[in-house]
Amino acid sequence: MSTKRTDMTDLKLIDAYWRAANYLSVGQIYLFDNPLLKAPLKLEHIKKALLGHWGTTPGQNFIYVHLNRIISQYDLNMIYISGPGHGGPALVANTYLEGTYSEIYPDITRDEEGMLRLFRQFSFPGGIASHVSPECPGSMHEGGELGYSLSHAFGAVFDNPDLMVACVVGDGEAETGPLATAWHSNKFLHPVKDGVVLPILHLNGYKIANPTVLARIDPEELDALFKGYGYKPYVVEGSDPEDMHRKMADTLDQVIRDIRQIRERAIANEHAGRPRWPMIILRSPKGWTGPKEVDGVPVEGNFRSHQVPLSDPGENPAHLKLLEAWLKQYRPEELFDEKGTLREELAALAPKGERRMGANPHSNGGPSLRDLRMPDFREYAIPVKERSAAGPGDTKVLGKFIRDITSSNPDNFRLFGPDETLSNKLNAVFEVTNRQWQAPVDSGDEFLSPSGRVMEMLSEHQCEGWLEGYLLTGRHGLFNCYEAFIHIIDSMFNQHAKWLKMTAELPWRKKLPSLNILLASHVWRQDHNGFTHQDPGFIDHVVNKKASVVRVYLPPDANCLLSVMDHCLSTRHYVNVVVAGKHPSPQWLPMEEAVVHCTKGIGIFTWASNDEKTAPDVVMACAGDVPTLETLAAVSILREHLPEIRIRVVNVVDLMKLQPESEHSHGLNDRDFDALFTKDKPVIFAFHGYPWLIHRLTYRRTNHHNIHVRGYKEEGTITTAFDMTVLNDLDRFHLVEDVIDRLPALGEKAAWLKQLMQDKLIIHYNYIREHGIDMPEIRDWKWKVPKQ
Amino acid sequence: MSTKRTDMTDLKLIDAYWRAANYLSVGQIYLFDNPLLKAPLKLEHIKKALLGHWGTTPGQNFIYVHLNRIISQYDLNMIYISGPGHGGPALVANTYLEGTYSEIYPDITRDEEGMLRLFRQFSFPGGIASHVSPECPGSMHEGGELGYSLSHAFGAVFDNPDLMVACVVGDGEAETGPLATAWHSNKFLHPVKDGVVLPILHLNGYKIANPTVLARIDPEELDALFKGYGYKPYVVEGSDPEDMHRKMADTLDQVIRDIRQIRERAIANEHAGRPRWPMIILRSPKGWTGPKEVDGVPVEGNFRSHQVPLSDPGENPAHLKLLEAWLKQYRPEELFDEKGTLREELAALAPKGERRMGANPHSNGGPSLRDLRMPDFREYAIPVKERSAAGPGDTKVLGKFIRDITSSNPDNFRLFGPDETLSNKLNAVFEVTNRQWQAPVDSGDEFLSPSGRVMEMLSEHQCEGWLEGYLLTGRHGLFNCYEAFIHIIDSMFNQHAKWLKMTAELPWRKKLPSLNILLASHVWRQDHNGFTHQDPGFIDHVVNKKASVVRVYLPPDANCLLSVMDHCLSTRHYVNVVVAGKHPSPQWLPMEEAVVHCTKGIGIFTWASNDEKTAPDVVMACAGDVPTLETLAAVSILREHLPEIRIRVVNVVDLMKLQPESEHSHGLNDRDFDALFTKDKPVIFAFHGYPWLIHRLTYRRTNHHNIHVRGYKEEGTITTAFDMTVLNDLDRFHLVEDVIDRLPALGEKAAWLKQLMQDKLIIHYNYIREHGIDMPEIRDWKWKVPKQ
Repeated sequence: MSTKRTDMTDLKLIDAYWRAANYLSVGQIYLFDNPLLKAPLKLEHIKKALLGHWGTTPGQNFIYVHLNRIISQYDLNMIYISGPGHGGPALVANTYLEGTYSEIYPDITRDEEGMLRLFRQFSFPGGIASHVSPECPGSMHEGGELGYSLSHAFGAVFDNPDLMVACVVGDGEAETGPLATAWHSNKFLHPVKDGVVLPILHLNGYKIANPTVLARIDPEELDALFKGYGYKPYVVEGSDPEDMHRKMADTLDQVIRDIRQIRERAIANEHAGRPRWPMIILRSPKGWTGPKEVDGVPVEGNFRSHQVPLSDPGENPAHLKLLEAWLKQYRPEELFDEKGTLREELAALAPKGERRMGANPHSNGGPSLRDLRMPDFREYAIPVKERSAAGPGDTKVLGKFIRDITSSNPDNFRLFGPDETLSNKLNAVFEVTNRQWQAPVDSGDEFLSPSGRVMEMLSEHQCEGWLEGYLLTGRHGLFNCYEAFIHIIDSMFNQHAKWLKMTAELPWRKKLPSLNILLASHVWRQDHNGFTHQDPGFIDHVVNKKASVVRVYLPPDANCLLSVMDHCLSTRHYVNVVVAGKHPSPQWLPMEEAVVHCTKGIGIFTWASNDEKTAPDVVMACAGDVPTLETLAAVSILREHLPEIRIRVVNVVDLMKLQPESEHSHGLNDRDFDALFTKDKPVIFAFHGYPWLIHRLTYRRTNHHNIHVRGYKEEGTITTAFDMTVLNDLDRFHLVEDVIDRLPALGEKAAWLKQLMQDKLIIHYNYIREHGIDMPEIRDWKWKVPKQ
Repeated sequence: MSTKRTDMTDLKLIDAYWRAANYLSVGQIYLFDNPLLKAPLKLEHIKKALLGHWGTTPGQNFIYVHLNRIISQYDLNMIYISGPGHGGPALVANTYLEGTYSEIYPDITRDEEGMLRLFRQFSFPGGIASHVSPECPGSMHEGGELGYSLSHAFGAVFDNPDLMVACVVGDGEAETGPLATAWHSNKFLHPVKDGVVLPILHLNGYKIANPTVLARIDPEELDALFKGYGYKPYVVEGSDPEDMHRKMADTLDQVIRDIRQIRERAIANEHAGRPRWPMIILRSPKGWTGPKEVDGVPVEGNFRSHQVPLSDPGENPAHLKLLEAWLKQYRPEELFDEKGTLREELAALAPKGERRMGANPHSNGGPSLRDLRMPDFREYAIPVKERSAAGPGDTKVLGKFIRDITSSNPDNFRLFGPDETLSNKLNAVFEVTNRQWQAPVDSGDEFLSPSGRVMEMLSEHQCEGWLEGYLLTGRHGLFNCYEAFIHIIDSMFNQHAKWLKMTAELPWRKKLPSLNILLASHVWRQDHNGFTHQDPGFIDHVVNKKASVVRVYLPPDANCLLSVMDHCLSTRHYVNVVVAGKHPSPQWLPMEEAVVHCTKGIGIFTWASNDEKTAPDVVMACAGDVPTLETLAAVSILREHLPEIRIRVVNVVDLMKLQPESEHSHGLNDRDFDALFTKDKPVIFAFHGYPWLIHRLTYRRTNHHNIHVRGYKEEGTITTAFDMTVLNDLDRFHLVEDVIDRLPALGEKAAWLKQLMQDKLIIHYNYIREHGIDMPEIRDWKWKVPKQ
């Protein structure tokens, strides 16, 4: 492998290839016909609706062709992430030029007819979006919503030592919060066991209508900023193509030398400290090579070239002339032969086979996508000799299972969290691994090491982005997060769920490992924090996305959590959201029962119910650990004092069971639903989240008008879990009252019990405000009902 | 005003004041009794549940007391924002010491009894949270969820030239994305017309369980990073109190000199360029002055002091001794007199009156909170001589109204947006103002100026954070954003809505101007972008919060948008979400009708209905501009072909009208709801968002089982607005079919019409895929129905 200077002939070819990509990009945005300009351009050759983003496109074409050169020269295993996203035309053009587009979409042939199809489908009804969307070969990051490119890039190279990700960060994107902190990913990258990210900050100076911040600070500040972020920045700046080709080629050669040196030093001495990885700042005009000026207004090098620089060449003959001149300046006749095929000497520039960035398997689920090696989750069961046996905290039990998954999959599984893995009680994982951390370690630190399977930075965006990058390249992972703050990545979840929906529709796309999210430290247990940390609404947000990709689980105890997590980690192409408690809490189901219950996803707790022989008078339903506890406590009160009431306890683990089967593949059919919830009996439903979600899921059910839901209604702050349920009317005493209110024929004993419940609430109120902890009756409560 | 060096006596007093604050902080976390340690500490003096965050607290106490000094010395108008948030004990202690706490809460007296109450209420059921929550005087930023302190700080000083905000940024918080980009706020601050933010990066080294990134990079990198961010960083580092007091005092004096110099230079020459504002990096031990070691494990200066360094002094006599020694090292007897009152010479250190940071009116709605001066919105009306008159785009019409609000309130209103104000078609505002921008301006730029009323950076977090800071200090504003990407600030909305809920319960807190969010570029109009830009779920998210603070509006046309926005901008203490279109679209209501319709919030379009004399056969309901268009187009088809059907058209502007009045103050009572929607007739509801939201809002209504909702169901990508409705079954043809399907007795004509609708869908499908635009019948459609 040589790093000799690229010669002028090569640079001329590179320039021609770049012109070809630019030509195809402009063609996609504008041309409805006459793709090779064999005839003079006419109004009717122009698309009727002009949509797309030119501004970022020529710069990305420039980068892509130069990366092609170094891939070939140094035999690099490289993929390309386009942060700006909107530069769809560039990536479509380049993957078409290198041949991958036609291999995947055989009707988009490498000739005039195929070129016309390529042009027409772009930003066209029934065609492809203007972004680097799932349809685009080589893409694992659509962009569109900006901010996550660099986190995705780092996620992709973890445990991929051979992989290099060229990550183009737009200077607009660079203003987003997630991107601004993603630069710090370099403090977490292992220089030998992980791959390399080459960030290329594309400083084209403008967003939609504004200049960008980073393009308008002093060059010294810009340099300091990236040195401060821990990089070695190289600037490639200018607009003259010949000059820029030379600079870019030389800089890339230097970057490769730097990377090799870092690698070699790190291999020689594993603890050589954190390397200063190179990054490139490419300062080139927005809309480079596009119209300099339109109607007397500057366009190239300006925000006006963001979308479509010429807005009406289909109606305005003067603008049509400008467009024709623009296209012809690329000299298409030198680039494509008579048939419209890229000339051989240019086609030879593209890397070969899977080295082509559009064909690299890493951007399509990875070259060696495989299932996790899973230990038998049953072996982690906690014994439940009697119902309500004390458990150490559900996530604490889970921790051991995760620990052994971690050791069994040393290069294929990572755990992500914003400094919450210990707080969420997954401590056991640190028996076998550490947090990966490339910065200095002090004597008082715990569980830090240059390599490790746990990734923690105090940024939910970063954790989610890393994990997504890891999954998109075909590995497995789990994100553990406080329930309230998972809303920080609502929008990232949206984009990932949309990616899953779209890729599932493309037969050539592999099914990815699921995005697994464990929400611990949930709404009902915010002892240290209070109101700001209470929000169970992420699941509301999740169920808005396509039923084919979302799953929500609320295991009531540790054994159920084990069973659920075992399932989730074995699935593909879903987002699985699991809500679980971390505090010591009662356990209900021995493992064999837990497996059956979780496999069904919903079911009757027959051991808690007394309606075996008859129809129930009331159904007490529950979902979530705390609501299950309160429901069962209410049942024990009712069965003690009003044994004549026939109660059925239904517990929901898989929330999607509640939806009609027409809406979600997990949904119960109406017969089964009615069999559980009856057609006409009152249902008191204690729910982990906002109560309306249950109504939303069940409004089509026969007995919906009888379903009375208790859940979180934005009340309560710093207090005990039990007091939280009281403040939100979800506690055992309120639930008993709810049942009594709905069974009016009960008579005096019921009235007495209702009064007792109200008294208990007052006693509780006074006790907790005096002592700061729950009264003994609550603390010492155990499941116990009289034999029927 | 002198800047002479603080003398040793003063520093000794400052140290004593700091010890007092630390003593009160530890007392809050631990003590249930014996507040002044007059008796030996016993197990029963300790709280039963120990909750709180010690780690950040002593550092914040240190900062607060030093800020007190410079406030007094330089007569500064200063407020304090605590980014770490969890340091509640520090701010409670300090506002108690300076007297503001007792003024607001007279039962928390400045004596032993009051001190005991202060201790007991902390992190105690019925008491106050561990954060700088709304109950804490001087707080306008609770923290809890991390990341927004610096954006809030800058928002607070816009148009507050006299105000200085000391913003303590935790090094944990500094890892979040929003905070990482918030540093760039300095590129937007006017050095004379706005106030000053003094960021203090509190580098105490640790998060919950991990070291922080910024504490473990090389000092040169840290320095470069903040120079790169455009600041002049000063480091105050150490752990010896005497030494640290000296350094901090000297540094603060230097900072004040720098700030004065910047101000003076900027006044002398308004375009002197962007100043390099000073910032402080305070590197002090986490849990400073707390137990050095517990059970042989280091605690001070370590993550182990994050929450409660001694976990069980109420049960463990050895730990009790440690706690007693810890408390006694502050020498309370030197700080408080026999009665428990702060000694006079210390009390004298606090600033006076409203200069006290706990009493500064800026953190409680500002000193001059006033309503906006509003022009008459009716004057911006567009004439609607006939229904479906062409409008230029609803937000474009709104732009002129916003323009004049901007000019009428030159120091009291700002418009915020992530580079989308032009894209969202509020162009008119640039007739009277610019985007505020402190960086260089190039010849091709538009609408940039060192001062301006429009704040644009490509970070929804930054825009939202700035606006919140602006509102919390009593000014008004509007955030304009693409609908899909408003999810980026879901979590910020949560925190702000929670702040509003809590402050509304505190009589001493002023009612704040509402947070107004305009969502343009909505789900149905993503011509350039497609699937990634389609998500109408923010309103689902919003309605989970307390009904008392959230409002959602879906005006069907420009005149309605004007009326709605006029209302929203006049309200207090709400979050108002308004969804509107930006593309040319049909107009329905002349202004006088629009005012009546929007005031009611829901109503019958009598001019579109033909059920005047009788009960309707079907109700066609709609909410949102595109659904209203499709509904009316469907009605015109039905009335032409099946005039015998009695149709009532109900349009919903105020979404909360659909909820029961028991759930939301805007909710219709059942009688009025039934009067609109009937008790038994089919309702075909065309909705802007996810259809389930309508079910969630209406499930308790009499006729709910007859409500059939069409809305967005995650289908479609780049295409026309009409094709988007087709792909989601919301278009006129599907709606006609829906009506026919629900009125089975219609006979042959209806069967023919249904077939016609299906044919139309096929014709549409073929046309749009051939031409890329809608067929003429759609493009040229006008409202027209035969006279009855």
